[in-house]
Amino acid sequence: MHDRSLIFPSTEYQRRLSALQTAMDEAGFSALMLTTPPDVFYVTGFLTRFWESPARPWFVIVPEKGKPIAVIPSIGAELMGRTWIDDIRTWDAPDPHDDGVSLLTDTLCAVVPEAGRIGIPMGLETHLRMPLKDYSRVSEMVAPRKFGDATSVVQRVREIKSDAEIEKIRACCAIADAAFDRVPQIAGEGVPLDQVFREFQIELLKAGADWVSYVAGGAGQGGYGDVISPADGVPLKSGDLLMLDTGAVRDGYFCDFDRNYAIGQASDDVRRAYAALHAATDSAMAQLRPGMKACELHQVLVEGFKALGASPGGGRLGHGLGLSLTEWPSLTPKDETVLREGMVLTLEPGVEIAPGRIMVHEENIVLRADGPELLSRRAPADLPVIGS
Amino acid sequence: MHDRSLIFPSTEYQRRLSALQTAMDEAGFSALMLTTPPDVFYVTGFLTRFWESPARPWFVIVPEKGKPIAVIPSIGAELMGRTWIDDIRTWDAPDPHDDGVSLLTDTLCAVVPEAGRIGIPMGLETHLRMPLKDYSRVSEMVAPRKFGDATSVVQRVREIKSDAEIEKIRACCAIADAAFDRVPQIAGEGVPLDQVFREFQIELLKAGADWVSYVAGGAGQGGYGDVISPADGVPLKSGDLLMLDTGAVRDGYFCDFDRNYAIGQASDDVRRAYAALHAATDSAMAQLRPGMKACELHQVLVEGFKALGASPGGGRLGHGLGLSLTEWPSLTPKDETVLREGMVLTLEPGVEIAPGRIMVHEENIVLRADGPELLSRRAPADLPVIGS
Repeated sequence: MHDRSLIFPSTEYQRRLSALQTAMDEAGFSALMLTTPPDVFYVTGFLTRFWESPARPWFVIVPEKGKPIAVIPSIGAELMGRTWIDDIRTWDAPDPHDDGVSLLTDTLCAVVPEAGRIGIPMGLETHLRMPLKDYSRVSEMVAPRKFGDATSVVQRVREIKSDAEIEKIRACCAIADAAFDRVPQIAGEGVPLDQVFREFQIELLKAGADWVSYVAGGAGQGGYGDVISPADGVPLKSGDLLMLDTGAVRDGYFCDFDRNYAIGQASDDVRRAYAALHAATDSAMAQLRPGMKACELHQVLVEGFKALGASPGGGRLGHGLGLSLTEWPSLTPKDETVLREGMVLTLEPGVEIAPGRIMVHEENIVLRADGPELLSRRAPADLPVIGS
Repeated sequence: MHDRSLIFPSTEYQRRLSALQTAMDEAGFSALMLTTPPDVFYVTGFLTRFWESPARPWFVIVPEKGKPIAVIPSIGAELMGRTWIDDIRTWDAPDPHDDGVSLLTDTLCAVVPEAGRIGIPMGLETHLRMPLKDYSRVSEMVAPRKFGDATSVVQRVREIKSDAEIEKIRACCAIADAAFDRVPQIAGEGVPLDQVFREFQIELLKAGADWVSYVAGGAGQGGYGDVISPADGVPLKSGDLLMLDTGAVRDGYFCDFDRNYAIGQASDDVRRAYAALHAATDSAMAQLRPGMKACELHQVLVEGFKALGASPGGGRLGHGLGLSLTEWPSLTPKDETVLREGMVLTLEPGVEIAPGRIMVHEENIVLRADGPELLSRRAPADLPVIGS
């Protein structure tokens, strides 16, 4: 298997297909209909940045038995033809009269018996990447076949990463580690934040990222205001806390972790908060085992703060990771997903240092039988100070 | 207005809102519900790469009168608070029990009378970025209010770019022009294609891109096989035709055009194809006027090939551009959208040079009252040869 467009040998896709078909059988689905970039990539190896164009829907049908069937715009035929998929059906999209609706319907009717159910991910953290009106038409045209919710079919399979997948994520993490090492050379007092963001993306590419799907961060005196804003042109000042967070991509897999840096100097409050986040992460690493629920791991992180007198910020404190920047489960008080061996997760505790001033700390791990193994290089125990 | 997070002064958003509300009134909608990154950005100025995370849905409600209402995950409150939006309602997402469903329903019920219709883009080139099951729940909970298709409400407004938007796209095009100028320095015989892709992204960042959402291309002897594949590690060879295509982003706006380069030498067939594409584009530029339909412009491009004895490739030969890499309309034989003053479009003719060997040529233009104005710098009339 020397065709890089496949990313993995076909045995990896065969394993995934078998796992999905077993789960489909248990849930009573005669087929799955997949529409999003990570789901399509997962079963086919079809990897392209062309998803950035919202013009066209793409469909992959996973039948009860046999290989997936691609029902896709003709512009993708050549690339899909280089994956392990044999049955590729195309139409000239976008077509205002029939944008794949009849081709999709014919395929579903041929594959699914009249009494059969077709699974689509419809639950938390999913969406259907096709026009809603066309979904309604297809629903009517495939009747008496019915669509049903296959969220857990897809999630329970995808969330357990194979060794080959873990190595892809590890390689991404190493790329980000190398780029983070360069931050003291690209950031410092007087450097505008938007320049830091650009230079950081350049470092990620130089370190081997195929592309950089996500860079965010923040900077501010004694903490930043949020973690999802684009950069402004304000120069960094002494006493700023700088955070950079990245989802770099290599072979279709993501890393997702951040690093914090003090510019010039760090206040005691900031150092204490950093130490609390680091210790809470250590504590979670020490206690996390397969069988624990996502909400229990959340509680461990919260207890870690409390023991250190820090108050946790709101929101989730980590999540799954792999074929997209964030995957289920979510480390929140409400997520009862069981954490299992082979899951790749982020541990992402955050604290509020002062009103409107936060700090977030993040690592990527894979859960092994005996506990977590780091995929990112562990952040330094002391907050790095740039230009002190 | 010095807050860069707004991207534009609030007068720009007020203009957009008025245009949408007029179109909503004509179409009989009491509110719009928007869920995708470009739609949300369009009415609010909320710009973030955090959309890369599929974990959380985001909603903006455009009422009949008054400013839009944001119904969003609390992680976005700080950034949304820096836009022109005043009414921001948040919940802690992701929530497996109620991921914004009741907050969204309450908002819709307060804004829309019981007999009212709520518009969602449901047609060609759209999707609903929220879990399908939650959409069903909201549909039931807002009854007797009904959802309806507001695709044309949103598209007829968004497709006409203001001068401020055109300047953003022009700035993006200039960034890509500068990066394309550097290609002879980063590509050449013996350089692996994936290295060219990485270096090209670095050049785009150096030239001022905030980030690079799209780079694709191809390389092959006498033409490439497709235009959406990621790069492989195969070194470029003399006689290869190299194409790079990019959607770089600055202030949330995209460019989308490509450039072709011959490595070492170009065959007569390749030169002839390049000349045909260039001439067909000139011909379309000369004939395009407001009032022409998308399908008529497609025909002009096809006639341009035929006059030169070339055979056009399949697929669309251009499309809208702006807040996403590709927007409607599509230059296909079936798209009847009327091209109007203020539309920003790509002209993207492609030819098949030999079986499985294609070439695509692309420019970005804005349609003015008297015809098209180039936003990308016109590609050279002769195919550039690198390292000849």
